[in-house]
Amino acid sequence: MKGTLWLIPNTLDDGDLVQSLPATVIEQVKLLRYFIVENEKNARRFLVKAGMKALLNEIELGLLNEHTLAGDLEPLILPILKGTDAGLLSESGCPGIADPGADLIRLGHSSGIRIKPLVGPSSIIMSVMAGGLNGQRFVFHGYLPAKPQERIRKIREIESRSKLNQETQVFIEAPYRNRQMLADLISTLSPDTYLSVSVDLTTETELIKTARVWEWTGFATDLNKRPAVFSILKP
Amino acid sequence: MKGTLWLIPNTLDDGDLVQSLPATVIEQVKLLRYFIVENEKNARRFLVKAGMKALLNEIELGLLNEHTLAGDLEPLILPILKGTDAGLLSESGCPGIADPGADLIRLGHSSGIRIKPLVGPSSIIMSVMAGGLNGQRFVFHGYLPAKPQERIRKIREIESRSKLNQETQVFIEAPYRNRQMLADLISTLSPDTYLSVSVDLTTETELIKTARVWEWTGFATDLNKRPAVFSILKP
Repeated sequence: MKGTLWLIPNTLDDGDLVQSLPATVIEQVKLLRYFIVENEKNARRFLVKAGMKALLNEIELGLLNEHTLAGDLEPLILPILKGTDAGLLSESGCPGIADPGADLIRLGHSSGIRIKPLVGPSSIIMSVMAGGLNGQRFVFHGYLPAKPQERIRKIREIESRSKLNQETQVFIEAPYRNRQMLADLISTLSPDTYLSVSVDLTTETELIKTARVWEWTGFATDLNKRPAVFSILKP
Repeated sequence: MKGTLWLIPNTLDDGDLVQSLPATVIEQVKLLRYFIVENEKNARRFLVKAGMKALLNEIELGLLNEHTLAGDLEPLILPILKGTDAGLLSESGCPGIADPGADLIRLGHSSGIRIKPLVGPSSIIMSVMAGGLNGQRFVFHGYLPAKPQERIRKIREIESRSKLNQETQVFIEAPYRNRQMLADLISTLSPDTYLSVSVDLTTETELIKTARVWEWTGFATDLNKRPAVFSILKP
């Protein structure tokens, strides 16, 4: 009998697990001895927080990150095919979403492995909830282009799309570029477009603001190096 | 000083809260005495599960559902403006997403109220996680049209869009139409398009299957009256 691939969300803030994961999810994590992770050191820190410090030498970690090739996925799922349960752990938020897990999950499906998602935080869904824009229809774009001109063009394109389809447009940026991203959004979008920004979600410094673009002018808080999710909707 | 509007996710399955909400979220819920809810009876059941049975007669419930008019939102947030914290409770999953809460949340923002999303289950994000399709880019469409011809046209349209943008297309249907929805998807989509279906998430009967459309032919499980989230991606 094949094992199950459990999908384990991680905290957004490096805080305690009880603040981010249901009690039964933490109990399930503690039953596992094989984890597929993006970064070994961070994974061990998570397992210690889950109360597994004494078990660390019994635990096997497989690496799955942006350097993993398609051919490396088979060896990662081999133990599961042989009957071992595995946990796919995200670095932050939900595995398979804006992280390298999706290909492994799809291979799991085609290999007849049961895939079991667990409940936990997602900065995307929390920003859509808290933004108060259209929660009936929304698009997540991942990262916008980094080059200034391409980014401005993309911002214009998704603003048009938000108007045409009345869909909230959600996207992220590397935290060290968030200051520039906010400046570009304010200077590029129409004054009456809604802009929502969720910063440092689940932490003490959490900031969630939704307002028309004209109301953002003069906003003085620096977003530099602070994780943020951006959403726009042109009415 | 104004109160805070806490956004409280609900279980997907009417099960125990410890299976779906982090311990600190349940503790936060227990501190509140004013809740904005879609259905009073279901809300009371949730509060009893949170351990608030003895407090029910101290608790004030405000109703927010599909019959609520724009003018009814002001009275709902008035207690918050006066300093009372409130909990906006979803019937299932996250408030403000595919439910009537978003307008209230936006009014909260424009009234200067702090909006605080809490961690909990979202069938949308869990189906994107577990589906293993593109988790870097996805669209949630809400409900597809109910009329047969319009629905078929919409399925074709979003299949094209998934190919063009390489975005996972996510949508739902009223559970009593899920059998027909699956039949329409199988007969309408290209054989090589990926179709992922997540049924009865977080319950004992949970079923999550991702496969090319041609592999779905002959799939015999009846989805009738079972809550499901559908996703497609044409490679």
